[in-house]
Amino acid sequence: MKQSMTLIPTLREVPADAEIKSHQLLLRAGFIRQNASGIYSFMPLGRKVLQKIEGIIREEMINAGAVELLMPALQQAELWQESGRWYTYGPELMRLKDRNEREFALGATHEEVITSLVRDEVKSYKRLPLTLYQIQTKFRDEKRPRFGLLRGREFIMKDAYSFHSSKETLDEVYEKIFQAYSNIFRRCGLNFRAVIADSGAMGGKDTHEFMVLSDVGEDTIAYSDTSDYAANIEMAPVVVKYEKDNEPEKELEKVKTENQKTIEEVSAYLNIDEKKCIKSLLFKVDETYVLVLVRGDHEVNDIKLKNLFEASTVELADAEETKKILGVSVGSIGPIHVNNVEIVADFAVEAITNGVCGANEEHFHYINVNPVRDFKVSRYADLRFIQEGDPSPDGKGKILFAKGIEVGHVFKLGTRYSETMNAMFLDENGKSQPMIMGCYGIGVSRTLAAVAEQFNDENGLVWPVNIAPFQVHVIAVNMKDEAQASLAEEIYTELQKNRFEVLLDDRQERPGVKFADSDLIGIPVRVTVGKKAADGIVEVKVRKTGEMQEIHKDELLPALTGILKNL
Amino acid sequence: MKQSMTLIPTLREVPADAEIKSHQLLLRAGFIRQNASGIYSFMPLGRKVLQKIEGIIREEMINAGAVELLMPALQQAELWQESGRWYTYGPELMRLKDRNEREFALGATHEEVITSLVRDEVKSYKRLPLTLYQIQTKFRDEKRPRFGLLRGREFIMKDAYSFHSSKETLDEVYEKIFQAYSNIFRRCGLNFRAVIADSGAMGGKDTHEFMVLSDVGEDTIAYSDTSDYAANIEMAPVVVKYEKDNEPEKELEKVKTENQKTIEEVSAYLNIDEKKCIKSLLFKVDETYVLVLVRGDHEVNDIKLKNLFEASTVELADAEETKKILGVSVGSIGPIHVNNVEIVADFAVEAITNGVCGANEEHFHYINVNPVRDFKVSRYADLRFIQEGDPSPDGKGKILFAKGIEVGHVFKLGTRYSETMNAMFLDENGKSQPMIMGCYGIGVSRTLAAVAEQFNDENGLVWPVNIAPFQVHVIAVNMKDEAQASLAEEIYTELQKNRFEVLLDDRQERPGVKFADSDLIGIPVRVTVGKKAADGIVEVKVRKTGEMQEIHKDELLPALTGILKNL
Repeated sequence: MKQSMTLIPTLREVPADAEIKSHQLLLRAGFIRQNASGIYSFMPLGRKVLQKIEGIIREEMINAGAVELLMPALQQAELWQESGRWYTYGPELMRLKDRNEREFALGATHEEVITSLVRDEVKSYKRLPLTLYQIQTKFRDEKRPRFGLLRGREFIMKDAYSFHSSKETLDEVYEKIFQAYSNIFRRCGLNFRAVIADSGAMGGKDTHEFMVLSDVGEDTIAYSDTSDYAANIEMAPVVVKYEKDNEPEKELEKVKTENQKTIEEVSAYLNIDEKKCIKSLLFKVDETYVLVLVRGDHEVNDIKLKNLFEASTVELADAEETKKILGVSVGSIGPIHVNNVEIVADFAVEAITNGVCGANEEHFHYINVNPVRDFKVSRYADLRFIQEGDPSPDGKGKILFAKGIEVGHVFKLGTRYSETMNAMFLDENGKSQPMIMGCYGIGVSRTLAAVAEQFNDENGLVWPVNIAPFQVHVIAVNMKDEAQASLAEEIYTELQKNRFEVLLDDRQERPGVKFADSDLIGIPVRVTVGKKAADGIVEVKVRKTGEMQEIHKDELLPALTGILKNL
Repeated sequence: MKQSMTLIPTLREVPADAEIKSHQLLLRAGFIRQNASGIYSFMPLGRKVLQKIEGIIREEMINAGAVELLMPALQQAELWQESGRWYTYGPELMRLKDRNEREFALGATHEEVITSLVRDEVKSYKRLPLTLYQIQTKFRDEKRPRFGLLRGREFIMKDAYSFHSSKETLDEVYEKIFQAYSNIFRRCGLNFRAVIADSGAMGGKDTHEFMVLSDVGEDTIAYSDTSDYAANIEMAPVVVKYEKDNEPEKELEKVKTENQKTIEEVSAYLNIDEKKCIKSLLFKVDETYVLVLVRGDHEVNDIKLKNLFEASTVELADAEETKKILGVSVGSIGPIHVNNVEIVADFAVEAITNGVCGANEEHFHYINVNPVRDFKVSRYADLRFIQEGDPSPDGKGKILFAKGIEVGHVFKLGTRYSETMNAMFLDENGKSQPMIMGCYGIGVSRTLAAVAEQFNDENGLVWPVNIAPFQVHVIAVNMKDEAQASLAEEIYTELQKNRFEVLLDDRQERPGVKFADSDLIGIPVRVTVGKKAADGIVEVKVRKTGEMQEIHKDELLPALTGILKNL
């Protein structure tokens, strides 16, 4: 493509409202433009990258046995009412009425539409399993659209749905799509992890998020420094075997503390290691109060607590509740002499000898506290958040933390939708059963932004070859120089003939502008046609490494093939 | 693709609410499903055909120098208010509010968005011309969605917009895109015409519609039986040279008629040819009344009348107005003795000798009427609709009529949007000028339906090779027969390896079901693996001609290549 014929509106300044690198650079390099808050146009270069990503997704989805279809954005309210989500989805679901006052939702996701389609067409186990996907525009009215394409209100998603007559085939398809997603993100060049995630309100069992590692990510991932293990920090079990030290138990003693409330303050004041302190927190688990103990340097993981009690809600008791139940303020709680609520503790607490805890009395703590002897715990369990340095739950290596951008999600839905929407099939015995479902999403436009976030330097974007808008950027330094203009044109034509994807900068611009734009855009290889054009010599520069070499036009083709192969 | 893994929900019955062939067959063959009135899902086979059409469009648009981008469906109301269309578009434009009560339109078309994008990024004639296109979902809340994909409320469009600093480059780009559109529809196999169209309220000058000839079309096309000439009937000029006969003028005579009002009745009653009758109609042209005369066998063409007077509106006067201005009822009007309104007439009236007209008196007509002698016409002009048999306006052949489905539209917009939305550029002299624009649309999903409408027979769809969902349909007659199942699988694999697009019917269904489904789906070539499978012999059938031959598997590849090439 010739730059004179396309629209690549580069900017020298960093746009004021773009906080993160990918947003800044995609705007500055002319890949996107904002139309409204959270709503963007993909300019020609952005559209190209999208198409590349879509192409990779299609290949891998087909390989995984999925079949493409296309569902509408306008979805009848009735379908969302059937599933119940019309009432629970909230203002993120954009709604409108047609000319006959019928209500519609703008598709935020397509569980309802696909379930109704399949329910109407598939009646027998013989037609299952079935995996369908689409690449389509989604609408979610985010409260705080931000970070450019990372959290928009109109965006492109690949969403897939699978239907099954058995859990076994769901497992198989889940595994295949898991593999396809790994391939997709790897081919996009991303540094990512498949992360064990919380199935949350959806009620599914297995679920993984594909997280691109990035400081601007909104989720924290706990991953192994040695193996593939990765999980949302909420989801990672702690597998530490705590050992009691050999110290003999000393006599329990109540000591005066001034205004020390936090573990840090108490530990410092008493000059006792935080690891010897017992952090006591009063929780409201559904309708019951529970006293939860963790070690001073640990944090309670609500989800683990919730799972222990198989509860629906878990929240920290407030000051008033604490006063009412335990008779003291929040900073002075302890387990000793507490009889009116159940006490549960993290495994680490069990190993504490001669510890410290609140005395349920303002300005007093106990020292030389010993579990069993001094208080009674009903259950010990894994109740804390994993920490950096903890052993990886798979037994391989140590845990590190990273921030992640969620670009993909695979999820075993089970019968959540088939039951509410009556998507039934007849099994081998002629018995009617709800279909078992899986759903699988990729944020296509978000993936584009995640790549931009991972691949850039101080001069601009640095696209991985597989999804670069073009492979080669040919620049005629001076278009008024006949030799340069004609050699650039010749190379452009020759490369295209040999199936290279080429952008030709044929603009009447100063060389400085052309080079700066080229770096900003970030095409993997640049071919500069300059003063040695008359001798047939051009300069080839690799965007990523800055490596440069002069090459004669006759050797250009094999040279570029080699360079691109190695990138 | 294996049929066991995809979803092709064929139907034996004709769906009750599908009136036309394409709608019936696309439903029956499982290409589409309706989600709501005018809203459809493209099932796997439908999605495939869409992709094929999109691929052809992309190739031809790139060839024409257009560059792809992608604009959003959610469009800020402010943009539509700037262009004024927020107020004039009516209920077809779907509107909604976001969570902050800001108003949006769902893109029915993208003139506003593209104009605002280009206005913000392009400031100089040096960046023009520029042609941008997208393939994207559009929303129009049709009053009467019908005919399946032909008139839907959510549909896929390719829309392109060009921006220019001069009319000359607009002419050039218009011509290129005109050519691209011709290529696109030709490659889709369609029997179509590029038709001169009415520029209507848009105010543009040149405009063509690409019409697929079909009895279910809603527009009437006048086309030459010899040349490429075609126009919407409203737009076709009449180039007949009328000659006066040699009959001597007789004396004007008022005759009694009973209740004969229409030309047909008067002609029959008086036994005088309709061609001798003068049809007199009172029109309101803007705020003025005009008496319009055409020959009895002709019809007044409002658009020609409007153009003659350079008027904004033209409508037939009602009974009350007629009574007030001419003192009689509508069926008795004539030009004789009329002095209070201007009289204009079609050229054909000028040639009438001894004609008939109303007498402006109930139950009376004049006979032996002669223009000039008996009444005064201020202007003779081409004021009638063209008719079948008229000479083609380009001088080549005679006019025939056909119905057409509009699948494409090219249009010189001029400065309609750039002026209202202030899209200016600096010309060579540093002077600010509004950009000159063109717009160019293709109904992508409508094109799919138009092909289905043109290519079918009593057994189902008959896809042209270029846009067929698959090229070859391999059918294993009996999947329980080991020889058949394995040969079918072998052929499927081998053909795919050689880049054929193949659908394999590997279902456990009766042969009759498989054959009927295959005919319904309409893949160009069928390979049936049946009883002679053990001998390596299969049957190859061409869907279009029904031609059948037995071929040994070793000769299948070259045979299929040959057949597909000739289709």
